[in-house]
Amino acid sequence: MAAEAPTPRHIRLTSHAGGYGALPLRWGAPTAAERGPVVGTTSERSHRNVIGTHSGSYSVYRALAVAAGALSRQHRADLTNTAPTDRIGPYPQWTDAARIVSLDPWGAVVSQAFTAELAAGYDIRPTIAVTKAHVVLPEVIEGLQAGRLKADGQVLTAGGAALVTKAAIEPVWWLPGVAGRFGCAEAALRRVLFEETGGMYPELVTRPDIDVFLPPIGGQTAYIFGNPRDLADPRVELTARVHDECNGSDVFGSDICTCRPYLTHAIEECIRCAQRGGVGLVCYSRKEGRALGEVTKFLVYNARKRQAGGDTADQYFARTECVAGVQDMRFQELMPDVLHWLGVRKIHRLVSMSNMKYDAIVGAGIEIGQRVNIPDALIPEDARVEMSAKMAAGYFSPGPAPDAQALKNTRGRRLEP
Amino acid sequence: MAAEAPTPRHIRLTSHAGGYGALPLRWGAPTAAERGPVVGTTSERSHRNVIGTHSGSYSVYRALAVAAGALSRQHRADLTNTAPTDRIGPYPQWTDAARIVSLDPWGAVVSQAFTAELAAGYDIRPTIAVTKAHVVLPEVIEGLQAGRLKADGQVLTAGGAALVTKAAIEPVWWLPGVAGRFGCAEAALRRVLFEETGGMYPELVTRPDIDVFLPPIGGQTAYIFGNPRDLADPRVELTARVHDECNGSDVFGSDICTCRPYLTHAIEECIRCAQRGGVGLVCYSRKEGRALGEVTKFLVYNARKRQAGGDTADQYFARTECVAGVQDMRFQELMPDVLHWLGVRKIHRLVSMSNMKYDAIVGAGIEIGQRVNIPDALIPEDARVEMSAKMAAGYFSPGPAPDAQALKNTRGRRLEP
Repeated sequence: MAAEAPTPRHIRLTSHAGGYGALPLRWGAPTAAERGPVVGTTSERSHRNVIGTHSGSYSVYRALAVAAGALSRQHRADLTNTAPTDRIGPYPQWTDAARIVSLDPWGAVVSQAFTAELAAGYDIRPTIAVTKAHVVLPEVIEGLQAGRLKADGQVLTAGGAALVTKAAIEPVWWLPGVAGRFGCAEAALRRVLFEETGGMYPELVTRPDIDVFLPPIGGQTAYIFGNPRDLADPRVELTARVHDECNGSDVFGSDICTCRPYLTHAIEECIRCAQRGGVGLVCYSRKEGRALGEVTKFLVYNARKRQAGGDTADQYFARTECVAGVQDMRFQELMPDVLHWLGVRKIHRLVSMSNMKYDAIVGAGIEIGQRVNIPDALIPEDARVEMSAKMAAGYFSPGPAPDAQALKNTRGRRLEP
Repeated sequence: MAAEAPTPRHIRLTSHAGGYGALPLRWGAPTAAERGPVVGTTSERSHRNVIGTHSGSYSVYRALAVAAGALSRQHRADLTNTAPTDRIGPYPQWTDAARIVSLDPWGAVVSQAFTAELAAGYDIRPTIAVTKAHVVLPEVIEGLQAGRLKADGQVLTAGGAALVTKAAIEPVWWLPGVAGRFGCAEAALRRVLFEETGGMYPELVTRPDIDVFLPPIGGQTAYIFGNPRDLADPRVELTARVHDECNGSDVFGSDICTCRPYLTHAIEECIRCAQRGGVGLVCYSRKEGRALGEVTKFLVYNARKRQAGGDTADQYFARTECVAGVQDMRFQELMPDVLHWLGVRKIHRLVSMSNMKYDAIVGAGIEIGQRVNIPDALIPEDARVEMSAKMAAGYFSPGPAPDAQALKNTRGRRLEP
């Protein structure tokens, strides 16, 4: 790797050049041209009209690449052939400033929507990418073998590959709207975001005129089974799950929770729905461990399994709160944005028992028909603690919620065999 | 959610209070007491001795929780019963400043190592958590059924659960050491980290006296099969894989790459190694899409599949470079730190064909015996483009690398059926 010596120019402690040359951003404007492009480039400071930069937390790796001499500061992405494989929108939801506050609805189509600005030299990057894929899950193959699923060569091949359209979405926060979702003043949100991250992005407090923030956090991915345009037609049956990352279960199959079984069950439901003329949707959000991160999650596991009386359902939420100060930091308030981006107005079958997700979706004006919970046979034995605690806390369940005694009696494995 | 009005105190644009009350950090010191604790708290500014704060990118969600009125700024984690289930170290590698630069080797044992400082009121949080788990993968169950794996009730149960010890690790960067790995000056690294993230953390350039940074990026997780203390004994056979996140394959099973098949093959190898008296290790790093992020990854997929001549192996790396400016941003230079933390001195079987990973591990002074590549039967048809391109680029392969004509002829699926 080549070394890069500091250049002689002086360091500027503000990331913006006073607005000269920056294009205006009017969140929720009726057309892309009136809204204006999100410009988070670091190569031309005077063009920036947002706080932060692209790629979420991967912006730190991009900086490392420059430091290592592997990447030119002036690199511009060659977007030839990268346009979305499927047209998503525009939908009426895109031009309602309050409906979508945490992603850029025009983020997938910057090459088409901002041709003039790109030609004028603005470095405008997509914040959404849409492609097609074949996904092959062992659980789906098992479903084919067991007869729960049938190959049709369209939605599901005989080899067990499901054909999907998928969209990767980076966070783009319109700060007035994010503050509105949490019922706090925009100035309070900006100040807390700055102070509670240990001083990230002073522009959050010094530049109230810049109201869009690209936070260094993980984004989300939407997997669509069937025709993406059907998502916006409330007459077409839609089966959907909004799933929050759990690396330990989603990838490694840890038996302490139901995350992967819920996800694969939802994918089966999505495939069947698409095969009967409907459409399926799985939205996957990078919110590891209820957005507390995996270190906190493992600390809580230890505290649960070592407490007096063992890992019982009645202490499930209490242990998280002792360590983290809250039970959950996922903030489903922002989650419906991706549904609005896809034009969703009705979910016929929501594969989830979370009351927080349900309330957020219905609160965003999207109708929900049936709620589909995980089949009992898919719940790992050690995950019954989580399941019982959630049912007692108001999560959806077709049967009665467990009572206090049942919660005490639902006990997980201890740490030592 | 409750609203929180701005409090009347003025906003301070630096995150530190001039060092009064902050404990010194001496990276690589011979004992924890001499090294001193990492203090990234936001509740007592005068105690902070690092730039940034805890939980990587989830610090942004923590700030949201405060803004929403759900979390007290003053919350202190109750660490009762959260201590590691297994003792890791201390190892000689921990006290060599140049060996470990991107994690805190004492991060799992703050309650024991910094008792006095905790009693004195310092808010010291673990940056590593160690727990035990049962992991159940469908591929492992299939391995049992096919006879590739055998249950022993110790490493692998008859039901297909593998018993593991796992550690979640947050990034803690000692900036002089990180700069050393990339061959650049510390001042250049600090400046580029600040400027190329659009102005994140001015203290990177204004406070050269603070040399530890908690970056807002994803961390890593180590899964250990067998006795964790055996990892440090070079006489005990060690099978290991260092795996970089690929959500599309690891979770959803996309057939364009070999990520999940490689991972599950490595887990099978780890199980067999532990069963014959050795130990297995999988280190999973949050570096989606070669640390370019998933939006860039999907843009590249489209460019590959739409280019003239189709998706051929000879154009595999070129398309990534056109969009991203580099072929890869994972920087394996930092990867061996987790191996040093675990005391690893020799890997008998490395399940990987990456020359970048191999070179980084050997360059860090860790011996590698055999290199184990993915069995041909596990490579999805559409992933042959990636495989051929990598073999031609110098990745390990037991057979000959494909020639120029073979690279042109190795062609993937087009976007439209």
